[in-house]
Amino acid sequence: MHYPALSGRTYLNYGGQGVLAQATLEAIAKGFAEVEERGSFSHANSAWFTQEIAQTKQVMAEELGVSPDTITLTENTTVGCNIALWSIDWRKGDRLLISDCEHPGVVAITRELSRRYGVIIDVFPLLQLAHQPADNQTLLQVISDYLHSNTRMLCISHVVWNTGQILPLKEIVELCHPSNILIAVDAAQSVGVLPLRLADLGIDFYAFTAHKWWCAPLGVGGLYINPAIADQVHPTYIGWRGLEGKSLGAKFEVATSAYPLYQAFRVAIATANQWGNQADRYHHLRQQAQTLWQELKCIPQINCLNPEPPQCGLVFISVAGKSALDLSRHLENHANICIRAMPHPPCLRASVHYLTTDKDLENLLTALRQL
Amino acid sequence: MHYPALSGRTYLNYGGQGVLAQATLEAIAKGFAEVEERGSFSHANSAWFTQEIAQTKQVMAEELGVSPDTITLTENTTVGCNIALWSIDWRKGDRLLISDCEHPGVVAITRELSRRYGVIIDVFPLLQLAHQPADNQTLLQVISDYLHSNTRMLCISHVVWNTGQILPLKEIVELCHPSNILIAVDAAQSVGVLPLRLADLGIDFYAFTAHKWWCAPLGVGGLYINPAIADQVHPTYIGWRGLEGKSLGAKFEVATSAYPLYQAFRVAIATANQWGNQADRYHHLRQQAQTLWQELKCIPQINCLNPEPPQCGLVFISVAGKSALDLSRHLENHANICIRAMPHPPCLRASVHYLTTDKDLENLLTALRQL
Repeated sequence: MHYPALSGRTYLNYGGQGVLAQATLEAIAKGFAEVEERGSFSHANSAWFTQEIAQTKQVMAEELGVSPDTITLTENTTVGCNIALWSIDWRKGDRLLISDCEHPGVVAITRELSRRYGVIIDVFPLLQLAHQPADNQTLLQVISDYLHSNTRMLCISHVVWNTGQILPLKEIVELCHPSNILIAVDAAQSVGVLPLRLADLGIDFYAFTAHKWWCAPLGVGGLYINPAIADQVHPTYIGWRGLEGKSLGAKFEVATSAYPLYQAFRVAIATANQWGNQADRYHHLRQQAQTLWQELKCIPQINCLNPEPPQCGLVFISVAGKSALDLSRHLENHANICIRAMPHPPCLRASVHYLTTDKDLENLLTALRQL
Repeated sequence: MHYPALSGRTYLNYGGQGVLAQATLEAIAKGFAEVEERGSFSHANSAWFTQEIAQTKQVMAEELGVSPDTITLTENTTVGCNIALWSIDWRKGDRLLISDCEHPGVVAITRELSRRYGVIIDVFPLLQLAHQPADNQTLLQVISDYLHSNTRMLCISHVVWNTGQILPLKEIVELCHPSNILIAVDAAQSVGVLPLRLADLGIDFYAFTAHKWWCAPLGVGGLYINPAIADQVHPTYIGWRGLEGKSLGAKFEVATSAYPLYQAFRVAIATANQWGNQADRYHHLRQQAQTLWQELKCIPQINCLNPEPPQCGLVFISVAGKSALDLSRHLENHANICIRAMPHPPCLRASVHYLTTDKDLENLLTALRQL
């Protein structure tokens, strides 16, 4: 399978945005052209849109291990997080718990909830645990210490974007659900990485995007909502699509989207499944990330921030005396290596995918050794 | 200019969705391919996205007669209406006035505002005025009769989707602004139809989409916010794009969109401007709509619901003894005529565009005469 972005380039930014297979690119063009052929606003297209939405939710649901009725199609992860965070009847003095590693966009939502409803935002220290081997008991104790009798929601990442920690969602649910605390998950860095059976985890919201690790087009994402909380949640942004939709997920959709991208999304997932199943993809991705981790440890001026072999695709690297942003620019401009500079903690983040080759890893290592 | 959807088809559904020029279709494919060529998540694409967003707002702003800083890019009209309706600090007992002709999606938002904040929704009768010649004084009196001391917002359409009425926004602003009532406008049926100089109207919000009369891709829309109210409004759905953005409009954007569609949007606008300027396009569109109106009056079994020559592209038709939905399906399947069935009042809605030819009108008239 040909991925144009990978030609002549070492690509290590899947956590920011994936790369499109040629077949996915062709599906985008074909999808938009076919809408015109079927007459744009026509009964033929209306039937097609309905079917596209259903098929797309079906594919997302299969990848996540849930029912298609629980899926809301969105534009990106952040819209899903917004739907979740705005969905309950917040009262003044209610508390919302987040970690100190959540994405700035999510943090900004919680600030507005605080301003508008008087919700108290608690922040538990997760970053400090990133530099020691994963220890679920300690993590659960920290979370537990930050829960109050009026905590109503916990909003956390499944895979933490700036540390690569994988949070034990099932255990967190077991800790919080007895106190009726809802669990909203930012899944930007887990979907397309970890094998998932969401129905087994018991989480309440799971917001994800298709354009990162799934290598699908920009502008396609989704949200899973646990049917057990259907009576507790309400859409905030509302439109005709939510009114017409019969399922829980559809209620949270708004209006017209770039529907032809849905077909391209399914081509991207089919392409991934041709490579291997979720477990195979995860196994290879982790193997490549661990290989990189091992090799990085042998370069004297490099500090690899992951304290133990990475369990997902995110590998964090700092180089003594160098600015991460300058390094990232330098590697892109002089070595055709795409690797992201993180603001906090300041470092480079290599996103290793199952598409990442041994040659890609060697290119990065060579460039780092030459610094 | 070639529009694939117009080949062998009489297209009269611009009010639902426009048709894409071949050049616009090609720009979509090219845009997505070029993102891959520039390395997906790369510094090169980051600079490109920033420029794309700026250029797109510039083009929208020129078409609307406002400053680019006042434009928020959205997915569709309804998202813009949601941003507006959720943006102020509603208090229990505040009143929101809408007409009885607003889109069901907008009505649903007001219901949720009522449920969540205790906002009282008032509905003024606009439909009853649709069957008599336009009379701004009567309309302004009706609106005035429905204003209360605690009315904080009026949400109306510029061109009414189910009647074609054009509301006198400047006069409505003059009526409402002295009482600090904000004016939010659903512009789904006016953008791409009426020549616009929004800065002269004084309205507070103007929510629009690019995929209808502008004949641009699905999934691109916008919202104008009057800079005079910048201190009164807050974003609800929030994300990194809103945090990074410096302008009023950017504050209301959320996260990743299908950016390559922006380039295609600008190709669509450039294509429209090649045909003629806003005034020329409007003049021709209105002329075609009025020709249709005249001809319809000569068909005995037809009732054209517009009481006087249409001033925009919407022409409403009922056929004695026939269901509009059946007729719409029949015309699409047997005569390749795309014309929409409206739920209320039940009728056909012909959307006449400057691209609509005399032959298109004759095809519709012939089919209607044969019923």
